[in-house]
Amino acid sequence: MTIIPKKIAIIGVGLIGGSIALGLKKRLGPKITILGTCFNPKRSLLAQKNKIIDQVWNSDDKIDTDCNLIIISTPILSVIPILKKILTNLPAGSLIIDVSSTKEDICNRVVEVLPKNIFFLGTHPIAGSQLTGFENASNHLFINKPWVICPTGQTSPKSLNIVKKLIKILGAKSITISPNTHDQLVSWSSHLSLITSCILFSTVSKQKRWRVIANIAFAGLIDTTRLASHNPDLNMGIIKTNRKNIIHSLCAYKKEIDEFMKILKKNDDEKILNYFIRAKTLRDKWLAKFNK
Amino acid sequence: MTIIPKKIAIIGVGLIGGSIALGLKKRLGPKITILGTCFNPKRSLLAQKNKIIDQVWNSDDKIDTDCNLIIISTPILSVIPILKKILTNLPAGSLIIDVSSTKEDICNRVVEVLPKNIFFLGTHPIAGSQLTGFENASNHLFINKPWVICPTGQTSPKSLNIVKKLIKILGAKSITISPNTHDQLVSWSSHLSLITSCILFSTVSKQKRWRVIANIAFAGLIDTTRLASHNPDLNMGIIKTNRKNIIHSLCAYKKEIDEFMKILKKNDDEKILNYFIRAKTLRDKWLAKFNK
Repeated sequence: MTIIPKKIAIIGVGLIGGSIALGLKKRLGPKITILGTCFNPKRSLLAQKNKIIDQVWNSDDKIDTDCNLIIISTPILSVIPILKKILTNLPAGSLIIDVSSTKEDICNRVVEVLPKNIFFLGTHPIAGSQLTGFENASNHLFINKPWVICPTGQTSPKSLNIVKKLIKILGAKSITISPNTHDQLVSWSSHLSLITSCILFSTVSKQKRWRVIANIAFAGLIDTTRLASHNPDLNMGIIKTNRKNIIHSLCAYKKEIDEFMKILKKNDDEKILNYFIRAKTLRDKWLAKFNK
Repeated sequence: MTIIPKKIAIIGVGLIGGSIALGLKKRLGPKITILGTCFNPKRSLLAQKNKIIDQVWNSDDKIDTDCNLIIISTPILSVIPILKKILTNLPAGSLIIDVSSTKEDICNRVVEVLPKNIFFLGTHPIAGSQLTGFENASNHLFINKPWVICPTGQTSPKSLNIVKKLIKILGAKSITISPNTHDQLVSWSSHLSLITSCILFSTVSKQKRWRVIANIAFAGLIDTTRLASHNPDLNMGIIKTNRKNIIHSLCAYKKEIDEFMKILKKNDDEKILNYFIRAKTLRDKWLAKFNK
């Protein structure tokens, strides 16, 4: 039987880390103790005071020997530096997982630094939001959401079982994909939206008459550019670790614009109508699954 | 003193037409009688039964002589055909306004068909939504929203005053712009979002692995492509009446993609970070005005 450790440490108690903590406490009750730490020590204490975590763990210190599942829930670019830093403080046999939104770069780097007696599994819960911080965390954030697991040749079956169990407890659905494929897929499902959202807002806000445009712009521009308000530092983590796939997606998008522009300039209104109908039909079908 | 007529006719009692009716009834009470008609006669009767309108007006019939403000609230491409059809049924001195989302084409065509004793003013309330139908109408849809008025050389000061008063009663803020400028501005504020939303969804859904992508795509792709689910026929009205400006905006957007692609390919991460920061800063500043 796969067993979730009685003590789990979360490094980075924000929206995701905090929601993992709350979800586990809700479903496992007193059977689980959550240790946690934030980049800012005052936030760690506040997370404890707000009962998001049970104990503050200063990750410079040795961790309790019975705490052998560590979840790194920080921005992408901090994962490897933090992992390196904590390695010597963990009991042998510990499993570290991360929850960041690109996987190949992290999985490749982990191989270079991980000792044989510590395990790692890269994961990515698809449950982001524009909200941040444990103040917005909730015990039901992951319910029915996909949670990607990216095993590699080094992943032990035991690690995989623990993580699948963890995801199940949190109510999410695990999807297993290789790190390389994961990063290709998220460049389409997520990063292309992020980048084009920023480019769209930049295009419109660079117009000479932006002040008047801003007065008459409303829901359409708000929604299509929502991701342009995403944290720029976090965006850089995505860019630095998934540049090749993002360039590839952006090129395909540019080609699609050219195709549309062609029928638009030709006044080929039947083709334009069919273009709109196809997009609407497929999108409505896709959305229907969320409402089931 | 400018006076709102005691009887107003609304052709096209949908989200916008219905919300105008409800807003006027809420603020003017028994002082106003709303006549209305839908494309589907059964819907006209239902709108009356639901107390959105007071009386059904069959627009093939002569209208009451004391009803001299007619609001055409139909898809863009129906405005001129409907206007032509009702002209002979209106009392002399009547004012017709429309509320559709492009203005130059309609204002130009109106000149060709309008008799001297009937007046017209093109307007555009910026209060759309993905919702449609009078079932979603509300008396507060226009509160604090912009409502563009597009007078031309032919617009009488009296028409302008009536419409400004109407907009004020509905709680919106009138903004006066020429039809030509309006259409340029909305190509940036609204139509570029609509078109790129469709193109983004098309790009992503055309990928071979769309079925897996669809499983891991979530809030980001949902929001950035929301407008791709907009009614294709209504989109065609926008395309047919604002093609030139849309092509212009789309070209500028493509140039902006090229600029971004350049720094992305060069690994010029300082410039990329600044790009993200600029977009976020300006967007957050823009959004702050909605929360005031």
